[in-house]
Amino acid sequence: MRRFTFLLVAVAMAGVIALIGPAPGHADETNPPYVTEIPHGYRDFRWISSAHEAGNLNSLGAVLGNDVAVKAYREGKLPYPDGTIIAALHYRYVPSEENNKVFGQAQSFVPGAPTNIQFMVKDSTRYAATGGWGFGHFGTDGKPGDAAFMKTCFPCHENTKASDLVFTRYAP
Amino acid sequence: MRRFTFLLVAVAMAGVIALIGPAPGHADETNPPYVTEIPHGYRDFRWISSAHEAGNLNSLGAVLGNDVAVKAYREGKLPYPDGTIIAALHYRYVPSEENNKVFGQAQSFVPGAPTNIQFMVKDSTRYAATGGWGFGHFGTDGKPGDAAFMKTCFPCHENTKASDLVFTRYAP
Repeated sequence: MRRFTFLLVAVAMAGVIALIGPAPGHADETNPPYVTEIPHGYRDFRWISSAHEAGNLNSLGAVLGNDVAVKAYREGKLPYPDGTIIAALHYRYVPSEENNKVFGQAQSFVPGAPTNIQFMVKDSTRYAATGGWGFGHFGTDGKPGDAAFMKTCFPCHENTKASDLVFTRYAP
Repeated sequence: MRRFTFLLVAVAMAGVIALIGPAPGHADETNPPYVTEIPHGYRDFRWISSAHEAGNLNSLGAVLGNDVAVKAYREGKLPYPDGTIIAALHYRYVPSEENNKVFGQAQSFVPGAPTNIQFMVKDSTRYAATGGWGFGHFGTDGKPGDAAFMKTCFPCHENTKASDLVFTRYAP
């Protein structure tokens, strides 16, 4: 029931936002061409996959998707429909001292301190200039990446055109 | 609505199973002291954390939890209540050739072929002999681990008594 109430509130809020929001497809300073608000409820999204990024990133994390994203992933249909939200949760890649003590060797690596959360939000009108995707990056302070940083997302994701700009595959 | 229907069916089935099931706390060959059926809907559980196990396991995966598990994790209350189900999904730890081609270096590691799924199911009556937890292990053929293998779960998990036999921490 609580979930249903939340859904109703979310739908109502989406309606209000749609009513007061800026004209679609028009990007200016008050309407940046990337995601500036952390999508509600992303931590309850379902699991798409995990990833370890070695090197400078030294990251361990997970990619989660909302219901639209999970459905699209499972059906394997491209492009992802409007309403798709994909979240990448990143943490430091650290050894688990407590696990390794039990195992008797350094084998277990787990998420340490959070580093950032990134999003891809599909809205083919609003984000037409970046392949229909709004990209989002939020540091641990909850603040979005600045415009210069956000400009780097799309050119890199353009390398994955065959999967509608999405790097992550679904782990069965 | 489909989800609600599924829930109703699941509740009804649980009732039938409870009616026809063996007496609780009594483990014999027809009622092994571990989990022999893959819990329904586990792939839709929410994400608890990710983990990379190096060495012989060479595994990358995720730990998911049902609603009872997620609530208990978030509230930090121990022991986990009856009804908790924790799922560990394991895959080969492999480099992503397609991602690394884009990044220009070998930095991206992702889940490869699935290897096994493991479960912890809390039922303090049925699994009283193993700390209230039923352990489960299923290979890619969907078959449970044999009795000899399943005997190894509890002694190892007993090393994590401070967290009610659960290794995995919640990633915020």
